[in-house]
Amino acid sequence: MHGLMQNFPLLVPSLLEHAEQVHGNVEIVSKRLEGDVHRYCFPDLARRARQLANALQRLGVGEGEVVGTIAWNGYRHMELYYAAPGMGAVYHTINPRLSAEQLAYVIAHAEDQVVFVEAMFLPMLEAIADQLVGLKAIVVLCDEDELPASSLPGVLAYESLLAAESDQYQWLELDENRAAGICYTSGTTGNPKGVVYSHRALVLQAMNTVIGLELNSRDVILPIVPMFHVNAWTIPFSAALLGTKLVLPGKDLDGASIHALMESEAVTFSAGVPTVWQMLFDHLEQTGERLTTLKKACIGGSAAARSMLETFRDRYGVEPLHAWGMTETTSMGSAPILTPAVISAGDEAVMDAKMSQGRAVFGARLRVVGEAGEPVPADGASSGHLQIQGWAVAQEYFKRSGRDEWTDDGWFDTGDIATLDAEGYLRLTDRAKDVIKSGGEWISSIDLENAALAHPDVAAAAVIGMRHPKWDERPLLIVVLRSGAVLDRDSVMATLSERVAKWWLPDDIQVVDALPIGATGKVQKNLLREQFADYQLPTASIQPAAEHG
Amino acid sequence: MHGLMQNFPLLVPSLLEHAEQVHGNVEIVSKRLEGDVHRYCFPDLARRARQLANALQRLGVGEGEVVGTIAWNGYRHMELYYAAPGMGAVYHTINPRLSAEQLAYVIAHAEDQVVFVEAMFLPMLEAIADQLVGLKAIVVLCDEDELPASSLPGVLAYESLLAAESDQYQWLELDENRAAGICYTSGTTGNPKGVVYSHRALVLQAMNTVIGLELNSRDVILPIVPMFHVNAWTIPFSAALLGTKLVLPGKDLDGASIHALMESEAVTFSAGVPTVWQMLFDHLEQTGERLTTLKKACIGGSAAARSMLETFRDRYGVEPLHAWGMTETTSMGSAPILTPAVISAGDEAVMDAKMSQGRAVFGARLRVVGEAGEPVPADGASSGHLQIQGWAVAQEYFKRSGRDEWTDDGWFDTGDIATLDAEGYLRLTDRAKDVIKSGGEWISSIDLENAALAHPDVAAAAVIGMRHPKWDERPLLIVVLRSGAVLDRDSVMATLSERVAKWWLPDDIQVVDALPIGATGKVQKNLLREQFADYQLPTASIQPAAEHG
Repeated sequence: MHGLMQNFPLLVPSLLEHAEQVHGNVEIVSKRLEGDVHRYCFPDLARRARQLANALQRLGVGEGEVVGTIAWNGYRHMELYYAAPGMGAVYHTINPRLSAEQLAYVIAHAEDQVVFVEAMFLPMLEAIADQLVGLKAIVVLCDEDELPASSLPGVLAYESLLAAESDQYQWLELDENRAAGICYTSGTTGNPKGVVYSHRALVLQAMNTVIGLELNSRDVILPIVPMFHVNAWTIPFSAALLGTKLVLPGKDLDGASIHALMESEAVTFSAGVPTVWQMLFDHLEQTGERLTTLKKACIGGSAAARSMLETFRDRYGVEPLHAWGMTETTSMGSAPILTPAVISAGDEAVMDAKMSQGRAVFGARLRVVGEAGEPVPADGASSGHLQIQGWAVAQEYFKRSGRDEWTDDGWFDTGDIATLDAEGYLRLTDRAKDVIKSGGEWISSIDLENAALAHPDVAAAAVIGMRHPKWDERPLLIVVLRSGAVLDRDSVMATLSERVAKWWLPDDIQVVDALPIGATGKVQKNLLREQFADYQLPTASIQPAAEHG
Repeated sequence: MHGLMQNFPLLVPSLLEHAEQVHGNVEIVSKRLEGDVHRYCFPDLARRARQLANALQRLGVGEGEVVGTIAWNGYRHMELYYAAPGMGAVYHTINPRLSAEQLAYVIAHAEDQVVFVEAMFLPMLEAIADQLVGLKAIVVLCDEDELPASSLPGVLAYESLLAAESDQYQWLELDENRAAGICYTSGTTGNPKGVVYSHRALVLQAMNTVIGLELNSRDVILPIVPMFHVNAWTIPFSAALLGTKLVLPGKDLDGASIHALMESEAVTFSAGVPTVWQMLFDHLEQTGERLTTLKKACIGGSAAARSMLETFRDRYGVEPLHAWGMTETTSMGSAPILTPAVISAGDEAVMDAKMSQGRAVFGARLRVVGEAGEPVPADGASSGHLQIQGWAVAQEYFKRSGRDEWTDDGWFDTGDIATLDAEGYLRLTDRAKDVIKSGGEWISSIDLENAALAHPDVAAAAVIGMRHPKWDERPLLIVVLRSGAVLDRDSVMATLSERVAKWWLPDDIQVVDALPIGATGKVQKNLLREQFADYQLPTASIQPAAEHG
């Protein structure tokens, strides 16, 4: 028997239509690259998105064709988020930190027809001009009078493009499984891999993000997480669904700029990677300023140190929310939903739970398996490979035949090592490729790094596995010291000893000026491994034999 | 281009699977008809639902076949909510207040194969025994030793049925547009009309209910709204999604019982119709007891008086939430989501907004049209026929060819008269059939009733339109007085005069002992009209001529 409900597909522009009708006077505030602050409301966004849809049509972008964006978080980028999917095309968000080679690769691989680009990133395209001959246009996100001189042909100003168009456009009634967006994930080896988001996945995750982060209509939301990165965790879509004021920070993500924006716009919720929060903390520390409106801060992208969560909670009275997701999961795969049992167990149990990556969102299933694919107990201690299934999880990469990342029974292997506990809390312990296999047992590089960060002299830390004749691999701790500090090996080792098993202690500690940070803000351990390729562990290192395993 | 996301349909049992995996230690507490309180956790619910699925199969219920339930809110009813859809069948929730004729009609029309029934409702089935020959079984929701003697053949005890089955069952991977549930809406005329809910609509509305009522995992939820009525507003499904403790009240909905349950289980959120809340208020008034844990109360089913919302807020410190939905909208069609603009305008603006039915939920579109179908301005003043479209809105009734309730362009006409304002707030002013058409203008019977309830002597009020030679119709106010009170016409008219236009004032006031209440707790105005069929309005009534229109 069939259900007798009306047939309305889950489409990205339906979020915007809803906002236009129901959240008519809710603002979107953008810090512009021009330096000023731009404000308008959802109906303005909708009107301009319709103009943009007409413009895309006029530029010759057809259904199923791809439109690239190299842009910060701002209202014009939002307009693209809706206009491209709404007229049957696909937005392709490009990370501006990609190398020239990667940039040329993703534009060609996605078959971008038009690229929308911030003026400051135009030189990136100019540098690969000979590889852009297939483009119908390059559109700079600016007014006509701010259009930079360029060696590229066919460069247009976004505002002139829009001004020529009608704001009447009927969003297409598409199949909800049609593509709406593409984002490439740049691994440490090989070409970037494209994940193709459906309308359905984006809309369902927009709902899941509201539920998982407990957003409400009184929130003022500042997504610092870039819109070029995993759909900004679908937060911009959630804002349209819920009718929350949205604050978009543009290019200035330093602590002073973010703090000023939070205060002037009365931001209550923000989301970003640990690096961004550390910059904010440094600014607050230096100036003595406070966070007077912020209530919740979501930390994702990579695992945060406990000290970061505690700083939010104890020093600034902000509730930290630790979440997890990947390019391949559209936005959050697990959300920081606390169980009543944890809450009643007290503050430290809550902080322990917050240090986890949360629990599977509805629509996603998590499992942890051993080397042979056997299930590992959900006891909070047994670790294994984290795999995920769900309605917003990639089933394959774009135009790529290999399926190495998927199991035979259809689970996506995240490349993470993790534990799950009886209440469903997920704890990432390492990347599979970074875990240190010592004497047949695993040492978590992340846990060691977090332990090192507890030492007052350590500003940043990375642990890599070094070949070892007896134990196969042993950990090497690489640190960046705080300015003025000198490495005191014994003191750092003492800090570590309080936090990890003795056989986990690194065989050596090396100091560097800075860690190599990749396009998505994560430490590039492959570069560290290259850097330390000729390094030899000291032979008289800590011998873990007695306690090992 | 197709999205490359994994294909997971939105299915009712996926909510239960999620709860079993992620919310393992969250309780479902049921006040049983046996008098005791039953407790178990989501994995127990899941295990027993799988046993029930096996039992349904053994009873010969096939895919697409229908299973009736005549039951209060309790854990066994929840098991049916999941087991029937999970094995491809359809739950058909039957209102125990239906007449024998209506009961026989819906069982036959839905082609129920098995009926699950509380012991106390078994006599209802015995009374129509000759019309139940097609049933494969009647299952009483009790233990074997509590099975009542019955004249009906093939009566089984629920617990014995389950005990015989394995708890292993793999929920079917169905098309999400397949039927999961049926609920009949009993109008005042004609046979009840069946609305067929898809898995997709129920799952999406479970998400919408979390978002619209701002539920979170720390809530303890008591749905007083019956599970036989519009899927209990999908609240039981939202609980599984979110992992909130669920408290099910059984048959005792009187103020003392509800209050005791709220206090003993630390309920934070509850939902019910105005009648239920009035009973609770009466109890609290009489005993001086307080609501020590309740934070939010959702009022739906019919419009609440402002005094009810104010009593919640001012006397009991509970946030009232006014929502709207119908059998035809799966659960909420509009939700009490406040806009920042309203909140910043102060307490009375918030109360005004709360007196509205809220704003369209995501996935639903509302419009108000005039007699000829022309759009009416969204100015908060212009009223017209409320129409709705959406993914959880019925597109037709079950096995019924007429489409009178749908417009040619596919909108469902709710039968309500309403206004919409610029912020999307919906305000129901009347049922279309109850609105009083006086001199070509409309008088809202609901507004008049609410005005009358502001008088201290008036316990209940209903307004009906009476034929009038000059104005076509004029209002007659019918009241139930508080015990001991005597009607003071002038005083009541004075109260009304402060609240409505002079030409709205009723031409007469009549006192009755009680108002006729129908199966869903609403005043049956058709019965009132019959009761007053021979009544004549006084000729020297208030003449509205001068100010009319």
